[in-house]
Amino acid sequence: MVNAQKEKNIEEIIINLEKSALDKWYKNDPSGYIDLCADDVVYFDPYIEKRIDTRDKLTEYYEPFKKGVFQGKIEYEFINPKVQWSDNMAVLTFNLRSGTSDNLSRWNCTEVYRLEEGGKWKIIQSHWSLTTPELK
Amino acid sequence: MVNAQKEKNIEEIIINLEKSALDKWYKNDPSGYIDLCADDVVYFDPYIEKRIDTRDKLTEYYEPFKKGVFQGKIEYEFINPKVQWSDNMAVLTFNLRSGTSDNLSRWNCTEVYRLEEGGKWKIIQSHWSLTTPELK
Repeated sequence: MVNAQKEKNIEEIIINLEKSALDKWYKNDPSGYIDLCADDVVYFDPYIEKRIDTRDKLTEYYEPFKKGVFQGKIEYEFINPKVQWSDNMAVLTFNLRSGTSDNLSRWNCTEVYRLEEGGKWKIIQSHWSLTTPELK
Repeated sequence: MVNAQKEKNIEEIIINLEKSALDKWYKNDPSGYIDLCADDVVYFDPYIEKRIDTRDKLTEYYEPFKKGVFQGKIEYEFINPKVQWSDNMAVLTFNLRSGTSDNLSRWNCTEVYRLEEGGKWKIIQSHWSLTTPELK
């Protein structure tokens, strides 16, 4: 019972952290993710030749996104999130749809969180990829 | 010193497990990965519409790969592996190149391992995506 309660709490905490960062992201504000990342975070997305290592490098990479990639209010659907966890690490996986039917983005996402001293969960690994990309 | 030693050991263990599974994979044998996965593994790759959950479902999905996807000896380059870990979870990330210059595959990969009772590390999350896919 205690364990089921704990599980529910960790799941809720992690999912809420992710959604808060996403809400900011779609308002052209990467600070939600930057603040949520640990110093040693590692990162993949479909637009980089090799893994980005460290929060400093990721902050640099995200800088252009502040200029307004997204126009207007972007709706997103956070699909089928799952959290697998141990005492001080947790993996969140989900699918995501965002944008409009004319311009739909579909994502696979894996976030690994670590519980830091002080009791805050921070992302140490982030992997974003396109769901079934149409290849040339 | 003890900690540095422990870190090195965990890194080595995890990387060796992954390479052993990869060696089999490129011989059309998914059993290395199947055996390395925990029952509750979750999985993403670029060819599926949504996350695959559980080892049973992944086993089914991998079944056709036994028939010989790869011809001849496939060379691969395991690039820049990094292991981040806590007591009973570890995240391995790396880039991978495989195949020949005519038919080169480039991958981003994240594997999350969990230390199971009995002392074996098992994959609980696997995310494979194409490095900078050329989109239509």
